[in-house]
Amino acid sequence: MPGVQLSSGVQRLSPEPPEELPTRENLLLAAAYVSDAQYNRNVPFQTSPQAIRLYCLYNHWTTRVATYFFICVDLSLALFEEPALFPLPFVATALVEVLCLAVFSARLVHFAKVTPQMVFWKDTKNICIVVTIMVTLIDLIIYGSLEAVRIHSVRWTRALRPVFLINFPESRQIRRAFRSIRNTLPDILYVFLLFLFSVLMFSLMALKLFGDRRLKTVEGAPYFTNLLEIAFELYVLVTTANNPDIMMPAYNFSWWYSLYFITYIIINTYIFMSVFLAVVYNNYRKHLKNEIRTLAHLKRYKMIEAFDILKVKVGTAFVVKEAMWRQLAKAVAPDISSSHLELLLRISDDRQQGFVDKMNFLRLADLLNIQVVTVNLRRHPLGAWMPQVYQSSPSLWVQRVVRHRAFVWVYDIIILINAVFIALDEKHPFISYAEWLFLALYIIEILLKLYTYEPGAYFGRKQFWNWFDMLIIIAALVATMANATIQSAKKYNSRQILDIVLILRILRLLRVIISIERFRVIVTTLINIGPTMLTFGGLVFVVYYAFAVIGMELFHGKVQFFDPNITSPDALVCGNPALKGSAFARDRYCKNNFNDLASSFIVLMELTVVNQWHVLAGGFALVTHQVAKLYFILFHIVVVILIVNIFIAFILEAFFVAYSLGKSEIETAIEKKIQELGVGIQEEDMQDWKLTGDTGARDSSFGGNDGDNRAEASKGLYFRIASKSKIPDCGCLAAANV
Amino acid sequence: MPGVQLSSGVQRLSPEPPEELPTRENLLLAAAYVSDAQYNRNVPFQTSPQAIRLYCLYNHWTTRVATYFFICVDLSLALFEEPALFPLPFVATALVEVLCLAVFSARLVHFAKVTPQMVFWKDTKNICIVVTIMVTLIDLIIYGSLEAVRIHSVRWTRALRPVFLINFPESRQIRRAFRSIRNTLPDILYVFLLFLFSVLMFSLMALKLFGDRRLKTVEGAPYFTNLLEIAFELYVLVTTANNPDIMMPAYNFSWWYSLYFITYIIINTYIFMSVFLAVVYNNYRKHLKNEIRTLAHLKRYKMIEAFDILKVKVGTAFVVKEAMWRQLAKAVAPDISSSHLELLLRISDDRQQGFVDKMNFLRLADLLNIQVVTVNLRRHPLGAWMPQVYQSSPSLWVQRVVRHRAFVWVYDIIILINAVFIALDEKHPFISYAEWLFLALYIIEILLKLYTYEPGAYFGRKQFWNWFDMLIIIAALVATMANATIQSAKKYNSRQILDIVLILRILRLLRVIISIERFRVIVTTLINIGPTMLTFGGLVFVVYYAFAVIGMELFHGKVQFFDPNITSPDALVCGNPALKGSAFARDRYCKNNFNDLASSFIVLMELTVVNQWHVLAGGFALVTHQVAKLYFILFHIVVVILIVNIFIAFILEAFFVAYSLGKSEIETAIEKKIQELGVGIQEEDMQDWKLTGDTGARDSSFGGNDGDNRAEASKGLYFRIASKSKIPDCGCLAAANV
Repeated sequence: MPGVQLSSGVQRLSPEPPEELPTRENLLLAAAYVSDAQYNRNVPFQTSPQAIRLYCLYNHWTTRVATYFFICVDLSLALFEEPALFPLPFVATALVEVLCLAVFSARLVHFAKVTPQMVFWKDTKNICIVVTIMVTLIDLIIYGSLEAVRIHSVRWTRALRPVFLINFPESRQIRRAFRSIRNTLPDILYVFLLFLFSVLMFSLMALKLFGDRRLKTVEGAPYFTNLLEIAFELYVLVTTANNPDIMMPAYNFSWWYSLYFITYIIINTYIFMSVFLAVVYNNYRKHLKNEIRTLAHLKRYKMIEAFDILKVKVGTAFVVKEAMWRQLAKAVAPDISSSHLELLLRISDDRQQGFVDKMNFLRLADLLNIQVVTVNLRRHPLGAWMPQVYQSSPSLWVQRVVRHRAFVWVYDIIILINAVFIALDEKHPFISYAEWLFLALYIIEILLKLYTYEPGAYFGRKQFWNWFDMLIIIAALVATMANATIQSAKKYNSRQILDIVLILRILRLLRVIISIERFRVIVTTLINIGPTMLTFGGLVFVVYYAFAVIGMELFHGKVQFFDPNITSPDALVCGNPALKGSAFARDRYCKNNFNDLASSFIVLMELTVVNQWHVLAGGFALVTHQVAKLYFILFHIVVVILIVNIFIAFILEAFFVAYSLGKSEIETAIEKKIQELGVGIQEEDMQDWKLTGDTGARDSSFGGNDGDNRAEASKGLYFRIASKSKIPDCGCLAAANV
Repeated sequence: MPGVQLSSGVQRLSPEPPEELPTRENLLLAAAYVSDAQYNRNVPFQTSPQAIRLYCLYNHWTTRVATYFFICVDLSLALFEEPALFPLPFVATALVEVLCLAVFSARLVHFAKVTPQMVFWKDTKNICIVVTIMVTLIDLIIYGSLEAVRIHSVRWTRALRPVFLINFPESRQIRRAFRSIRNTLPDILYVFLLFLFSVLMFSLMALKLFGDRRLKTVEGAPYFTNLLEIAFELYVLVTTANNPDIMMPAYNFSWWYSLYFITYIIINTYIFMSVFLAVVYNNYRKHLKNEIRTLAHLKRYKMIEAFDILKVKVGTAFVVKEAMWRQLAKAVAPDISSSHLELLLRISDDRQQGFVDKMNFLRLADLLNIQVVTVNLRRHPLGAWMPQVYQSSPSLWVQRVVRHRAFVWVYDIIILINAVFIALDEKHPFISYAEWLFLALYIIEILLKLYTYEPGAYFGRKQFWNWFDMLIIIAALVATMANATIQSAKKYNSRQILDIVLILRILRLLRVIISIERFRVIVTTLINIGPTMLTFGGLVFVVYYAFAVIGMELFHGKVQFFDPNITSPDALVCGNPALKGSAFARDRYCKNNFNDLASSFIVLMELTVVNQWHVLAGGFALVTHQVAKLYFILFHIVVVILIVNIFIAFILEAFFVAYSLGKSEIETAIEKKIQELGVGIQEEDMQDWKLTGDTGARDSSFGGNDGDNRAEASKGLYFRIASKSKIPDCGCLAAANV
């Protein structure tokens, strides 16, 4: 059976392949391979029946959710530990942390049971987790015992907590992003050194040109007299954060000195920063290609393994019997609809021979990955319940009106009028009544649509915009009523609820986008790349968390926030006299501090946006030491130069793929089959239907054709490939790149 | 003869092709075609002998330089007109402008004589120029006559002057960049509208959330109370220029409101701005590909025209005789060296049959475009002049030392020590003497190198770094001596010369880069894309010029600059009471004004860098009207969103090409031939030689082989293809993209 000799990264673990005819165990093993291929998992696991069951449990969504839950608990501990947003005693947080560590250990033991011993200990990820668990325990014990004798020490292992988030095998995406960064480092290092060299040379020049001129900054401080300070200021200038200000004293002195700064900005800000982006982007593309190639290779290998387990000889070729194929598909995707399964079978077993050959079998993982929407073209329930009334001429007239494009336009105009009313002062009673009127209009719209379109189709799984529409209106209705109740009951505007009502009312305006096709395309593309953008969210979170914990240890309590109404001298310098006269205090940045996790995250967000980061860096350097600026420079290099550039590279690539995307080979195959079987929805229909949610229209026009010779499709069942412009994480990028 | 029926954009203009054997006229015509193909010129010209001569004159460098000279004069007039940097009376500038217009008209008439009437008037470029000339003349007359009766009016046609720079056929590059922008507009428009919609929705939300809270900004102004102001502030936030400041009042009020701003920044700053880049980049790539394809097509067509003129029948095929080919090459490239010509001939006439066939003839334009460096491996003049001394053992030892890598390292260390000395205070006499010591060391280095390497090769045409090295040292020597002379003579440090000396001394540190291979690669890539970056310089200049002229008309004299030492209340508000208490006055931005062309350009540069642009916009809005902010928003959209993104797209593409660049087919053919003929320099030698300028070494090692059978190469003549990693404007991009 192991006739395939692929030199693959997956190690064949059981030297004796199952020789007998497929049993329940073998089916499970094959399903595990197919499932791994489908989700691009690359975990070598043992092939004994017990190990496979453990492996299935390991991959089951419950255990994975549980792991993520405890990772979240572990990470959120920082909210409760000193400096805390919601203080809890050390004993409580320590107990929770030990519990989390126990869960992680259990998960790791589980994994060790699944994977062979040798592979387990060769994997850096596992070693990372083991080491982190042990180090954290030691740190906890030391800190606890020191705390018991009232010696304050630092819980430095808190910065290591994101290790769990990264290293559990489930976080492939985040690890891939990290790998992307690591691979970029050597290339970027030389550009960075050259860039540093350039900054230092310009610093030296600035010292010589301006150092002896006795110039003063706007604040009256000496201008460009200390080499280190100059280097910092010029680094800030690269980020453009101190742009004209740093130039003004020299420029005021002589027109010609502006040339120095313009040259500097062109070379370092424009050219070097673009080169950073180019290097990061180039590496991103290169490694994406390599990874996709490897993944495709491994996927094929796993599918061949699965095939070899299930194959039987028919004639001269090995094939998989239809019944076995069906069982396998059911095992891999338990909640697949039977009509969908039949469709896939018809695609795999093209000539209806009762078996699936090797080539078609290998496509199974890809077939399962393509979302086929089953469109159920049922008649409207009202039409079934009381056909006379529903098909009467006034009712048909109403339906025609609702389906007309003008209906959409009228409601777009109503929304725009609503926007004007929102912008006006809502204190006026007339306007607050108008709000109820608008709500009523929206509810009527939804009711009319439900009357016209079949509700099951209107709120289908992929009808994002219909759901969005409905939810916004219901939420606004509930919130407005809640607000009215509170208002009348207590003569008091609850701020929280009012805010939510306001936001919901304005979000309603988003509906205008739905009416304009080009807008929908852009928004759909953005929504489709959303899940992968969350990867960057994870990446940023990990880096933020580590920096926040370090920042809290370094700067905790150095800057205090006072209520803006207090004007005591202490409040003006954020409770720290060292800030007197600083830009930090003048701009009232007191709330930008590291006194708890939430504040730290907001400060780091501000640093990511870059503007004024030198003011923040300068403030925290004043309350501690000038060396503290290194923390902020390091953050800038890691987050802005590396991560933000990778994010931009990702968006660029995703949009290019969206622009150049044809259907993949397999999608085309499915679509062809759907059309062949006569159960497809025409392209034009689809667009029309997308635009207005108009599936009911098909109901009446195609409804009469039910009795024709559509092979195996259930009556009124139609298929289409979900969202063509979708950008899945890997597959389509592969199609466009490899 | 016109047997080629290409459906090309170039129109065949003379219906009767020259039927006789190639004459002087025909050769000229063929040379014009080849030259057009070589430089990618696409000007349809008449084929009468007189027109061809005129066309050659039209393309001659003297007439082109003259045109550019008068364009520069015309553009620089803005320096002398009110508001002037160097005021001149109106009569003087008007006369110069009329002169320029006359020259432009003459150039246009010249062009009209070359190109057929119909084509001339169909070309928008020519119509643009004609209209601009006429409008400018009318404007001049009106302005002059009004001025004569002391009525002040606006010279609005000054903003049209860049039209000349764009529309003369020589500025293909800038036009291409403009076309790139124009092509991007439809795609970007929808994204921009969606972006505006998003900004407006968030503005409405901000008004509702914060408008009634009676919050105050740091300056004490009401916070988020006016919808238009909010929209402007939020637009500024997209550019990150007012980042944490705009958030602080709401954040101080409640922690939760920071989420509003973070959401806003993620959606509008990160995602939308990346999408803009993606759209611009995608269009840039697409149109680059199309243009390159068209250019390649036209080039081939022109070469076929040239071939058809010169061909004679030999056997069954049409060919071009060797003598004719030689004449043609000489006519196209008059200053080609005869050895280079022989090399090209050997490549084109591979089997030495005495003629060039069609396929090889078509490659001529590309062959001429590839820079082949003729390396003349002569013996060192000292070696020829007094061989005993030069070949003596101490002399050989010196040469060995200079060629050793350690020699480079020693001088790198010397440069670094020099950097430390520069950083130290030069007032100390010891240090100022050290400066002379360093200069002496550098001169000794150059002399030693000249002694060791053959001077002709050391200062070869492509030895950029050697030239750079030499020039920096000579300039530093001259400047230091000039400074010393002035100092001793007048006891007075001339500021200008001292500044230049300082800069030269520090530029010397750049030499360290030469020693590190990876740095050289990056710098070489940057230098190679330099010429095309100048295109963007031209593009930016055109936009800046138009905006500067408009800005000067709008804001001229509204803001005054006072010497920083004057502290009168007038100086504190830049001479305009409207600025009292504004951020513009507080930051002392008085010199950022539109009072002359130079200042305007610097303000526009600051606006391009983005940071603090809202302060500038706010200042100029205060001294005029809030509507003035539109000028600044428009500038941001045009320059930052469009041009800077195209610049980034260009750098990205250029770096990708540099990373993925193989040799083009033709380069490979030439290189093969060079190797075949045994006149190539080995790759390894080349690198070694690049690194240390080590051509003299070859002299001694290969010198003895002179008498061997190297076919037609002159003695000691070697070739190599110049700078492989070079990115020419089009050719290589084509190789990588098409």
